[in-house]
Amino acid sequence: NPPPSSDSSVNLDISDSVLNLDVGDPRAFEKFWKRMDEKCKVTISGSEVMSYVSDLGNVCWFLEPKLRDAIKRVHRVVGNAATEDRHIVVGTGSTTLFQAALYALTSSPPPPPGAQPVSVVSAAPYYSGGGSRGLMVFRSPLLHPPDPSNALNVKVNPKRCFKDVTDYLRSGLYKWEGDAYTFDKDGPYIEIVASPNNPDGTIREAVVNRGDGKVIHDLAYYWPQFTAITHPADYDIMLFTFSKGTGHAGTRIGWALVKDKEVAKKMTECITISSIGVSKESQLRTAKILDVLSDDCQSFGAISENFFEYGYAVMAERWAKLRALVKKSNKFSLPKYPQESCIFSGKFKETFPSFAWLKCKEDVDLASLFKAHKLIVRGGERFGVGREYVRISLIGRDEEFNLLLERLASVLGI
Amino acid sequence: NPPPSSDSSVNLDISDSVLNLDVGDPRAFEKFWKRMDEKCKVTISGSEVMSYVSDLGNVCWFLEPKLRDAIKRVHRVVGNAATEDRHIVVGTGSTTLFQAALYALTSSPPPPPGAQPVSVVSAAPYYSGGGSRGLMVFRSPLLHPPDPSNALNVKVNPKRCFKDVTDYLRSGLYKWEGDAYTFDKDGPYIEIVASPNNPDGTIREAVVNRGDGKVIHDLAYYWPQFTAITHPADYDIMLFTFSKGTGHAGTRIGWALVKDKEVAKKMTECITISSIGVSKESQLRTAKILDVLSDDCQSFGAISENFFEYGYAVMAERWAKLRALVKKSNKFSLPKYPQESCIFSGKFKETFPSFAWLKCKEDVDLASLFKAHKLIVRGGERFGVGREYVRISLIGRDEEFNLLLERLASVLGI
Repeated sequence: NPPPSSDSSVNLDISDSVLNLDVGDPRAFEKFWKRMDEKCKVTISGSEVMSYVSDLGNVCWFLEPKLRDAIKRVHRVVGNAATEDRHIVVGTGSTTLFQAALYALTSSPPPPPGAQPVSVVSAAPYYSGGGSRGLMVFRSPLLHPPDPSNALNVKVNPKRCFKDVTDYLRSGLYKWEGDAYTFDKDGPYIEIVASPNNPDGTIREAVVNRGDGKVIHDLAYYWPQFTAITHPADYDIMLFTFSKGTGHAGTRIGWALVKDKEVAKKMTECITISSIGVSKESQLRTAKILDVLSDDCQSFGAISENFFEYGYAVMAERWAKLRALVKKSNKFSLPKYPQESCIFSGKFKETFPSFAWLKCKEDVDLASLFKAHKLIVRGGERFGVGREYVRISLIGRDEEFNLLLERLASVLGI
Repeated sequence: NPPPSSDSSVNLDISDSVLNLDVGDPRAFEKFWKRMDEKCKVTISGSEVMSYVSDLGNVCWFLEPKLRDAIKRVHRVVGNAATEDRHIVVGTGSTTLFQAALYALTSSPPPPPGAQPVSVVSAAPYYSGGGSRGLMVFRSPLLHPPDPSNALNVKVNPKRCFKDVTDYLRSGLYKWEGDAYTFDKDGPYIEIVASPNNPDGTIREAVVNRGDGKVIHDLAYYWPQFTAITHPADYDIMLFTFSKGTGHAGTRIGWALVKDKEVAKKMTECITISSIGVSKESQLRTAKILDVLSDDCQSFGAISENFFEYGYAVMAERWAKLRALVKKSNKFSLPKYPQESCIFSGKFKETFPSFAWLKCKEDVDLASLFKAHKLIVRGGERFGVGREYVRISLIGRDEEFNLLLERLASVLGI
């Protein structure tokens, strides 16, 4: 890790501050939820949900029945995932469910002592951290109220990514092996398929496809504000997260839809051992908000109340501005996404990922170039590809997005 | 693991049902919190706490400032832990903080490839699971409302224990080595000291005491409803949990008080990687309840509003009944605890652990004997000692405790 920064100067001028577009704190939709403050309000009294146990009738015994019902309903309303005959496992965000799935797929039956860890792969560019980057400095007063005692010189390591999560404890059960395209080891493996993919927004399928493999589908972005819902996903293990579904990142609620009961049991066991369940207050609030969301999607009339229409409009506007800017440079490019028919909206829709995956046609260290313009973004090498790529978060607040556009013009040299 | 039970017969007669006293779901204090329903109410609207980030001014950037303040205050009011110049790290229950502490103490600097995992030990009897036990059947309608669709034939594995948590991912960083008393391996080690200890309620200090060792203090039960607060604990890493502090197990909030900033940073990093923080709704509710608790401890007058006095009275009554029963048999014994002066209450107080650690003077498989009387308890072998011991949860609801007494009389043969 690099030495901690010794820079402690106070600087609250937004125009001069570093803008962090690495983490992807999903605040683009806050205005919508502000309007829904009252409707989505939850109240919890002193003696509620005191037990460890939520529902002994469920494989996932710490899943609140209200949340189970709300999850099933929102998937039915949106049409993005099959929930019939699935087991729902709740987690503290989908990251814990990813780890629970790795545990479930590698620990039963327990491997003999000395067995090689199972290989974990994902097709590049994949959601990865890369150990060398170390701590990162958040200095953006935009990310937080501009209070000098709060906003400065704080180091945060926002490494939620497949590689780090797989390897940080040096597990003997599983081990990160990198790019699925170049994977050629014999033996059992687990492939993670993120679709739409983070960082590049593409729709994906598994690439290794061998008999001794298992697949985990990370569908965090398979929601109508980001992409066309072409069909209900129907895979063995599907991960979703509230933070991407609605923008409620602080709630830390994710869920897995799992076909095989034994896998769901082992995932539940993993979360039982590591945290004896998942915070019930956050489960109750997630249930409430998902229910309001489903209600509003099903009621005809006031279109501004439909969260997914609102979110799609926000993303469409941001992407239009971004594409217009990038088009002015002939050195840079963004991915192109096909239009697809969306079963949720009944329209043809483009994909508007929450991250822009920008490529420079010249061989430059693009993340460093951005940094020189006070923009912190994640470089391609951290996703298993070249340094001519960067991933830029597009789901910050309006002020952050506007400042991005302003500075990006300088990066692009226009 | 044993095969899943095929017994699906419905039986809701409480007198005939199996009573599970293994898990320790802390429901003994629910009546108190029921009275406080209104006072402890929290309301969260649709757009609150949406960000990943709580406080960039804190090493633990996902800790809500309100919770930080409430934790510091309750420790000042109770006098059970020093908080000055400590870093507070919040976790999804204290189990995640135990794992975060193991990670922090073993990953910095990163050990070279091929290095032996650091030994993790605790003095027997210690809080352990034991791999062979496998899934357990909850069938108690007492534990849950007697709804036939919910209460039956559900397998839950409530393995929160040092051994399982240390070893379940077969980490290359650390490894469970069992009893601290017999530990004689060279090299770095980590000792866990639970005080008051689970299962036997004793007040403990570290036993290995070598220069290359680190100590984690689990102070989950160092609260005035269970024991005399003799001094503010002042160790390097101290773990507390809301579930034992007040009985709010469903909230899944724990916290660590950490002296060394670098250790606090690495613990924060661990929780960042594994779950990108801790549910904010549960943090806000914990803050609210801790604040009400501190208010009421500081106000003179109505003693029934002081949670710790209430809790101590409940525990004292249960222990009196239990000791009176055990005394009638000359084959069984319970630990004796010294009376100590309590700085919180200003009185001499006995220890009333949340678990009874019962010993039979004959060599019997005591857990099996309990099972024959429809009482599920945890046997001594799972705590690193003999099968003539069992741990019995005393913090269930009144109905459960009364049923325990009734059946215990048969077990004791009186």
